[in-house]
Order: sequence, then structure tokens, then C-alpha cells
Amino acid sequence: MSMDLPVSPLAPKSFPEIDQIDGVELFTSSIGETKDRENLLLVRLAQGSQVAGVLTKSNCPSAPVDWCKENLQNGSARGLVVNAGNANAFVGSVGARTVETTATSAAQLIGCDAEDVFISSTGVIGEPLDPEPITLAMKAAIDGASDFQRAANAIRTTDTFAKGASAEFDLDGISVRMAGIAKGSGMIAPNMATMLAYVFTDVPVNNGILRTLLQEGNAKSFNAITVDSDTSTSDTCLVFATGAAQAKGVAPITAMDDPRLPDFKRALDAVLKDLALQIIKDGEGATKLMVVNVSGATSDASADVIGRAIANSPLVKTALAGEDANWGRVVMAVGKAGEPADRDKLQIRFGDLILAKDGFRAPDYSEDEASTYMKNQEIEIGVDLGIGDGKAIIYGCDLTHGYVSINGDYRS
Amino acid sequence: MSMDLPVSPLAPKSFPEIDQIDGVELFTSSIGETKDRENLLLVRLAQGSQVAGVLTKSNCPSAPVDWCKENLQNGSARGLVVNAGNANAFVGSVGARTVETTATSAAQLIGCDAEDVFISSTGVIGEPLDPEPITLAMKAAIDGASDFQRAANAIRTTDTFAKGASAEFDLDGISVRMAGIAKGSGMIAPNMATMLAYVFTDVPVNNGILRTLLQEGNAKSFNAITVDSDTSTSDTCLVFATGAAQAKGVAPITAMDDPRLPDFKRALDAVLKDLALQIIKDGEGATKLMVVNVSGATSDASADVIGRAIANSPLVKTALAGEDANWGRVVMAVGKAGEPADRDKLQIRFGDLILAKDGFRAPDYSEDEASTYMKNQEIEIGVDLGIGDGKAIIYGCDLTHGYVSINGDYRS
Repeated sequence: MSMDLPVSPLAPKSFPEIDQIDGVELFTSSIGETKDRENLLLVRLAQGSQVAGVLTKSNCPSAPVDWCKENLQNGSARGLVVNAGNANAFVGSVGARTVETTATSAAQLIGCDAEDVFISSTGVIGEPLDPEPITLAMKAAIDGASDFQRAANAIRTTDTFAKGASAEFDLDGISVRMAGIAKGSGMIAPNMATMLAYVFTDVPVNNGILRTLLQEGNAKSFNAITVDSDTSTSDTCLVFATGAAQAKGVAPITAMDDPRLPDFKRALDAVLKDLALQIIKDGEGATKLMVVNVSGATSDASADVIGRAIANSPLVKTALAGEDANWGRVVMAVGKAGEPADRDKLQIRFGDLILAKDGFRAPDYSEDEASTYMKNQEIEIGVDLGIGDGKAIIYGCDLTHGYVSINGDYRS
Repeated sequence: MSMDLPVSPLAPKSFPEIDQIDGVELFTSSIGETKDRENLLLVRLAQGSQVAGVLTKSNCPSAPVDWCKENLQNGSARGLVVNAGNANAFVGSVGARTVETTATSAAQLIGCDAEDVFISSTGVIGEPLDPEPITLAMKAAIDGASDFQRAANAIRTTDTFAKGASAEFDLDGISVRMAGIAKGSGMIAPNMATMLAYVFTDVPVNNGILRTLLQEGNAKSFNAITVDSDTSTSDTCLVFATGAAQAKGVAPITAMDDPRLPDFKRALDAVLKDLALQIIKDGEGATKLMVVNVSGATSDASADVIGRAIANSPLVKTALAGEDANWGRVVMAVGKAGEPADRDKLQIRFGDLILAKDGFRAPDYSEDEASTYMKNQEIEIGVDLGIGDGKAIIYGCDLTHGYVSINGDYRS
């Protein structure tokens, strides 16, 4: 099913060192026949753990997404099960039964209610997923402790590298921690799919606050990246707070005006953004990270639409692949976005090089300098609309032969 | 500037035979240094000619688009000038001056007002266009008559074949005619750009009726095709009616309830659709025509959005390139469209083969049959939402290595 893909040229040199988080126990294992690699993650969380999540807006979500949506309303969590290889999506009512059986089995192992167990599945669409081998794999897993690197590897499908990030900071003078893992590139079944991310912290913080912070952080991280504008039926991001640091003397965060909240938020935003950028850097066939920096739009929402039009434009993406400072295609993408724009006030820059302004090619534009800039692995496309204060940053990648090969060639 | 691209495998065997249209005189020539091929089209239209048009919705339109928008309000036309090689777009106020000078020169040659001359330019963005060589080329051109095939060739940029279509039908028992040419693939400067289409008829019909019919016909032709979701700054479609058939006894069409109108509309729709499909068949790197047939949506508008989400999805497009009957990606595209959909009522077919229904893989689905179907050059993806009467047809093409090469490799 999966292909042996070369590791992305944009991958970090190695998986980061991530220590354990108090109140979080990680277990990994192999499901059924797959013995060559781990593809199951089971997480046991301390009693009293809180959870918040954001899920795919797809109108055809997978059964696990339906389950998570339902149970996120409680805000409490004791477990997480992730299997890689089968998305349990578009399989009719069988899907919901598989999720329920899996959650019930995990709940028995953990010693909790089934609705406190969160489930994600990633992989093939339209193939019924048998819960029995998953239950057996969980039973096998829970005998031995795992770690974040193995956990990040166990949720991979076509990812070319395991994705992890962490933060350590002080609250009440006491060191607290946060760690996250993610998977995702940009494709979907039957060649695997989906963006999944899980963040864990020992900070005692209630689910309402967690939800607010996640929504804000998500807007500038996972919701600001795009590989090919395609949305999976299974996209999931969950943040769990075990509260275990309370035992070390950290008082619970229970209000949005808690003076310690900015520190927590800063750490969460950093971990979310780090994971999101790692996903972009593993975009299929990606050789360049595209940072689209839009300013001067009539509103932030308008800037966001324009930024996405640029980051998703196949013509802009192929220009990056060809290391071509093709600002004409950026003008085109701004024009097609359908948002307020004034051709004669538009400024376009690549990095610090201004290529066009006031409705014209910049008079001192040097094609040589621009060509040299385009050889970088990270390309910033700056667009200033010059008609307001709205701004947005969207992250994308280039469109290469690798993308077509990965998504189009595997049957031939 | 232009590359030597192999002719699209989807191209018609040859340019169709298109006779002259009464009241339409075609002239073609070469601008400035380019002597190896013609890249200028000048058209002289009979006195009293009517015109209607649809133009790019880009918020950063080219100067010729601004000019056409302004002058379409009169509804009268005597001339058309098209140059290929420079889009006269994003060049500040210089662009408008070039258009005015060109229109004035053409008007002198034709013997009409400048505002009755329509202008299109296609090619590089951001390079000032000198009107002087265009004027000289027009003067050279007007000495010898040209034809539709040469006209279609003169407006090409990266098109791999010239595009033409025609219709002949009876009004009042008298034979009348319609002919159109078009150019366009899906890319933009500096590698040339834009969709342009011009249709000519000898039928006497006023510009108000022409406008209504063009808007309806355009919705099901040029607005129903997508190569890469990118919109040019210069897209233009104009329909000219010379009224010359009146001399043969065809009474003018002056009202929407004219009983002859359906025949005229049928011909116009057919010519527009023929040209639009030829543009898709010349999509960069295209090896397959994708026909997305959406039904059962809550409204036609909703079906249209869903159809575009599918036709523009890089994952669906690469699946076609790989001849992979990947209905999971179609589910994904329906889900991401953001329109009303019910996973458990969705039916997906490729041609006549039903792959998924009722939220599940179709029980009698044969992967062999599906794989065989995917080898066709024209692939129909049928999606029935099962929740309403809304329907739409959108035409697209596959995403291949050829697309990436054409748009990404030319600098390397």
C-alpha cells in the first residue's frame, strides 16, 4: 500500500528530544499482520485530564471524527487511540460500530468510560475496519511503555519523516511541559491521508480555556497551511491537559485573565506552528516552503482569502518549483481571489526584493537578484494591497514532478 | 519566449473547414521582429454590427479588458484587434494609452470611431507594449484578406493547436452562419496566457439579446471549464453580429420571444461549447478530458461549487493522470466543497460504473472494470448527492508531469 518515498529535503535533521509529560502514558504496537512497523498508538491520560479539539469541516467526515465531535462536548479525556492504514471513512454504519467497539475496548484497558476515549483513523477510505485486531494490538501495547518518537512514527502513513515538537516553560516558578506529535502531508486514500495532531501538557487548565486557545492557535498554524487545497475527511487536532503539574504546586488555570495564560498560550502557539510547518515541509514532492505574507488588505479575512489564492495557485506553485520569480502569476492570483484590490496600489515582493509596485514592474527590479533569491528553500511572497490594515500569513509549498508522481503514478 | 510543445493528444485531427461570414473581413500579420509567425489579428466588421461580451472577473484586469468593458456598453462594433505575445497587463497608465493609440489607428484604417474597435492582448505581463509596431502591422495586414484558420493561429500563444468552430442553420428559410475562434490553455505570463474567444455571425440580432444569450451560453461553456482554477487578467469572450444576412432576406431578431431565437441560441451554445472544450483539450499537459456531472444537489449553484471542487482538486486530477478510479478522492472533494451533502446518500460513478453509494463502496464494484474505464481519453465522474434537484456539468482535465514541466521547468 505505502510507497518508499525519499525523506523530504525540507525535513528537520532529526526527531527532537522530547521528554515524558506527567500524566501521559504512551503505548505503541502493530495491528494484525503488519509486523514490520508500528501503526497503533494508545495513550492513557491521568484522571481529570481535559481536552479540546478542532476537526475537519468536511461534509463527509469519517466515523472517528463524528465520535470525537460528540465527546469533545464533555471536555474530559482519559485515552486516545490512533490507527494508521485504514481511515474508517465512507463505510456506512459499520464505521460507527468500529469506533464504539474500539473505544469500549480501550476504556476497559484504561479503566474509564468509553466516551472519554478519543479515536482517530488514517489511511484507506471505503474499506471496513475490523476492530478486533486493534483491540488485540492495544492489549499487546499496554504492557510496555513507548515514547513520543515511536508514537509519532506509529501514526505515519505516507509521511516521509516523524513529526514532533515540544516546549518547556515556568508557571508559578515551576517547570511545566508540552509536547506534540503530528502526521500529514496532503493526500488521501487509497494512498493514505489526513492531517492528525495531538498536543499534551501537564498544566492544569480547563477545557473551556483550552478550546479558546486552540482555536486561536489553530487559525495561525494548521488552518494557515495548504499543500493542495484538499481537505481530508479525517483531519483532527486534539490538545490534552493532564493537570499533573498541580501535584508539583502549579495552581490550575481557570480564567482567561489568569496572568500566567500568555506564557501557556505562547508555548501552545509555538508547538502548533512547529508541527504545522513540519506538515508543509512534508507536502508531497515539496522542495520549497512558501510563506505568503499579505498586508494592506481591507480586512484580515480578505487577506486570508488572497493569501490562500496565492498559496493554492498551481501556477504560483509551479513557478516556485522552477525557481522563477514570476510575480505576474501573483498578480493573477490576487486578481482571481475576488477580494478588494487596486491594481495600481499593489506591491509584490519576493523576500526583500520588491518586484512590482503601483501597478507596474518595480523600476529597480533586478532579475538576477530575484533568480538568486528563488534558489532558497524558504521563499517569502509579500503582497501589500495598499488599501487597508488587513493581514494574514499562509504557508504552502511548491508543486513539483514529485507531487504528480506520488499522487498519479502509483497505479501505472 | 514560447516553447515548442508537442500537440495535445486530445487535439482534433485538423482545423475545421470554416467559410467566410458575411460582413466579417479578417486580416492577419506579424508584429515588429516576429516574422516566423503571424501574431496580429485585425477584423473589420460591417456597419451596424452589434456586439456582446463577457470579460474576466479578475480584480487586476488588463488595460484592454478595461477598454472593452467600457465600450461594450454601446453594443456597437466595427473592429477587433488582437495581439499575441504581450498582455499589456500590469503596466500602469501606459497600458491604457497603448490601447487608445491602437484603437485610434485601427479606427482610421477601418473608417469608424475608436470606441467601436475592441482590443485584446495576450502574453507577457508587466512589459510595456509599444503600439507603434502594432499600427504598422495592421497597415500591412489590411492589404490582403485572411481566413479563420490563420486568424485562429495568429492569436495563439502556448496553444498547441489552433481552435475554431462553426455552425450553419436556417432562419426564415435562408441559410445563416456562425463561426468562432479561441485561444487559451491555462497559464499566464511570462509564459503567455489567457483565454480569448471571438464568435461572428451574419444574423441580424441586437446587442441586448446577444448579451442575454452569451451570458447563458457562457455559463455552460467557458465558465464551466477549468484547467487549474487560475483566472487570467485578460480573459475575454466577444460575440459579433454583422446583420449582413438581412440583405439576403433574414428579418432582424429584436425580441426575446422571436420564434427563431431557439435556433440561433442552439447554434451559439454549440459553438461556445465546442471552443471551450477545445481549450480544455489543450490544457497544459492534459492527456484526459474530465467531465464532472453533478446531480441531486440542493441547487444548481450548489452543484456548480461541488463540480468545481472536484474538477480543480489536484488529487482528483492526478488520479485521472494515473488512470486510477480513486473515488475516495471524489468523496474528499465533495466533503471539502462546503455545500450541503449527506455522506450516506452520496452516489459516485465513473462512466456507467457505480463505485460508491449509500455511504459505502458499491457492493458489485469491479476494480478491473473501473481500471479499464480509466484508460479512456474522456472520463465522466458522476456524483449524485441524493438530496435535491440541483445539477451542473463542469469540464476539466488531468494534472500530469507535462503541466509541471510547462509551468515549472522552463527556467531551469
